[in-house]
Amino acid sequence: MTTPLRLGIAGLGTVGAGVVKIVRQKANLLADRAGRPVTITAVSARSRDKDRGVNISAYAWEDDPVALATRDDVDVLVELMGGSDGPAKAATEAALAAGKHVVTANKAMLAYHGQALAEAAEAAGAALRFEAAVAGGIPVIKALAEGLAGNDITRVMGVMNGTCNYILTRMQSAGLPYEDVFEEARKLGYLEADPSLDVGGIDAGHKLALLAAIAFGTRVNFGAVALEGIERITIDDIRHADHLGYRIKLLGVAQMTGRGLEQRMSPCLVPKHSPLGQLEGGTNMVVLEGDQVEQIVLRGPGAGEGPTASAVMGDIIDIARGARMPVFGVPAADLTQATSARTTAPAPYYLRMALEDKPGALAKVATVLGDAGISIDRMRQTRHEARTAPVLIVTHSTTRAALDEALAAMTGLDVIAQPPVALRIETA
Amino acid sequence: MTTPLRLGIAGLGTVGAGVVKIVRQKANLLADRAGRPVTITAVSARSRDKDRGVNISAYAWEDDPVALATRDDVDVLVELMGGSDGPAKAATEAALAAGKHVVTANKAMLAYHGQALAEAAEAAGAALRFEAAVAGGIPVIKALAEGLAGNDITRVMGVMNGTCNYILTRMQSAGLPYEDVFEEARKLGYLEADPSLDVGGIDAGHKLALLAAIAFGTRVNFGAVALEGIERITIDDIRHADHLGYRIKLLGVAQMTGRGLEQRMSPCLVPKHSPLGQLEGGTNMVVLEGDQVEQIVLRGPGAGEGPTASAVMGDIIDIARGARMPVFGVPAADLTQATSARTTAPAPYYLRMALEDKPGALAKVATVLGDAGISIDRMRQTRHEARTAPVLIVTHSTTRAALDEALAAMTGLDVIAQPPVALRIETA
Repeated sequence: MTTPLRLGIAGLGTVGAGVVKIVRQKANLLADRAGRPVTITAVSARSRDKDRGVNISAYAWEDDPVALATRDDVDVLVELMGGSDGPAKAATEAALAAGKHVVTANKAMLAYHGQALAEAAEAAGAALRFEAAVAGGIPVIKALAEGLAGNDITRVMGVMNGTCNYILTRMQSAGLPYEDVFEEARKLGYLEADPSLDVGGIDAGHKLALLAAIAFGTRVNFGAVALEGIERITIDDIRHADHLGYRIKLLGVAQMTGRGLEQRMSPCLVPKHSPLGQLEGGTNMVVLEGDQVEQIVLRGPGAGEGPTASAVMGDIIDIARGARMPVFGVPAADLTQATSARTTAPAPYYLRMALEDKPGALAKVATVLGDAGISIDRMRQTRHEARTAPVLIVTHSTTRAALDEALAAMTGLDVIAQPPVALRIETA
Repeated sequence: MTTPLRLGIAGLGTVGAGVVKIVRQKANLLADRAGRPVTITAVSARSRDKDRGVNISAYAWEDDPVALATRDDVDVLVELMGGSDGPAKAATEAALAAGKHVVTANKAMLAYHGQALAEAAEAAGAALRFEAAVAGGIPVIKALAEGLAGNDITRVMGVMNGTCNYILTRMQSAGLPYEDVFEEARKLGYLEADPSLDVGGIDAGHKLALLAAIAFGTRVNFGAVALEGIERITIDDIRHADHLGYRIKLLGVAQMTGRGLEQRMSPCLVPKHSPLGQLEGGTNMVVLEGDQVEQIVLRGPGAGEGPTASAVMGDIIDIARGARMPVFGVPAADLTQATSARTTAPAPYYLRMALEDKPGALAKVATVLGDAGISIDRMRQTRHEARTAPVLIVTHSTTRAALDEALAAMTGLDVIAQPPVALRIETA
């Protein structure tokens, strides 16, 4: 097969420019590995004249990504614009409708429109691939959908937002408050234009929803991810956790239980010397568990030009080699609509709150916990000079339902000066 | 595509029985993921009547694996007999000659005959896949040959023999001498029939040679792997290393340098809190480094029924889905014959030896090191009651060439009671 595979690249930001560089600089290597030349025919971006450190003058230019997607001389739309809707979705739909393959790094688009796009791709006999959408350079979609295809997957978990992990590890290492490190991250360009996508756990939630769909053969259901961001984590939480032997990580977990599919993305305490606990900065880690393979752990850079472009190129080379498989591992029509379930597995929880400095305040909180059947492992009221007293509680293992009952009852107490932050302690 | 993919399974040991179980128990899941039913037509093994915990009466029986491989009703030979030559090689060659695909877990066969078999497979247009041959359940071949196909790979390293890692971690945790743990491992069935395959580093060397071929587009060259086993590691080495902040691991490294391809598999000291240092028991870890992706680390079970069968099934499902690619990532004819190079990157080394209890003994050793341009970081002569004195030296960073010069000169010294054990200290 010596017909070239012709790419149309929509979006020439960091990742798009990275893909152009690889295609230009590694033509021989890619042709040898792909079994045919990989070329770029046309590109599209917001501004034609911006300096991207790469020469795009040899490629046809399209102002409109939809026009790019449907060009006769484009076999694969490489969608690197981002955004769940708008031009990214329009171009992807147009490409699939025209029977062209799509490679994208767009987690938001797939989290919201994955099912419809998968159906469109499969109806057209086109590939729709998105390795770069989850965990940057780590080939986790490939590992899950292909490498572990002989397994019933039991659980998927991971740290999949490098910005949150940067913020949390930097708070830990530099002893800085959340606000300062957030500002640092903003200046370094680590944050999305809408920072809540990162620190609200939304971006990581998108990724978890995509992995869950593949793992359990279910329709992508981002709306069912129980989301908590890292915005309420304080330097005191980081210090308390450290003191208890833990690190705080924005951790995603998806598992199929008798009651349905659990999906959650929330800050958790993990043992500081565990692989997850040792994860620093922008590095991602994904844990895949299957009935045959037990546990596979994958670690690597979660973002950046090279790693993300590497994931995009892996998909492109697969397409060039002729690999075809259903978008989420099984035909879109066979993906089931899973009941979504709240977290059932019990765990200890870390609670931090502020109480009014009144006699009996602590007793009221302890009573509420006791009434919900939650026993206390440790409780500590730290020294204070204000009118409110910071209180730290570590519970024994309890269910999320019992905890929610206690948290609801606490909001009615007149002694709660600041509503509790509750973080799950993951020990396995 | 609803034509079933029909398997002929040669070898019904632990892994073969595991594959049969998966195909029987997950028929619907596999069909959904593969896009067509996956069935078993025929099987072959040494003994027909052995109880394997799985019912094979529904499958045709062949005494001769070559006959199995060439049956009209077999599309894929699943070769799980093992052994570099003999029936495994005969059946594989026969299957490929008949245009049938082959999935194998046989690292030895590929380490010795990889090039010829790859040429045969490609000439026949058949797939030859071997995910299960390297690092058990970890989909490392897939990650390297497919996921990272857009990278120039710079280095591959890993701990890939679970038995050696079991022995080394057990010596550490239980404080037992090598011989006792070796005996334990033998009783537990962890050792190959010829234990030197494990403890001599040969099995791990086979795996490294396969990864190096894919990583660097070179012909498999197991003969060029600088092999050292773990047989000379003593409980004192384990203790000294611990004291210095290290663990001893049988570590493989392959990298392309200006002088050629370096491949080595040898016991090394790695920092005890590093991911490699923390690796326990039968778990494997592989580190893949590429110019785009920086570093990807994969961890998982390196052996056992479920994990190995998982890897075999991943290959089978890929074949069912129609995935075809060159055996070592690029066409066999394009694989280059790399010059093999000795290790060039300098590193500190750990040396342990026994000296005759004579005046000036230590000075002679220090002089030899100095003459080779090697400076000493630490040197310790431990207390002893015998006529010989155990001596421990940690050098500053030096080249392997300088070290070899010093080691050669030491053998000529009249004060060396026991030739030195030299272990590289890997800090990155």
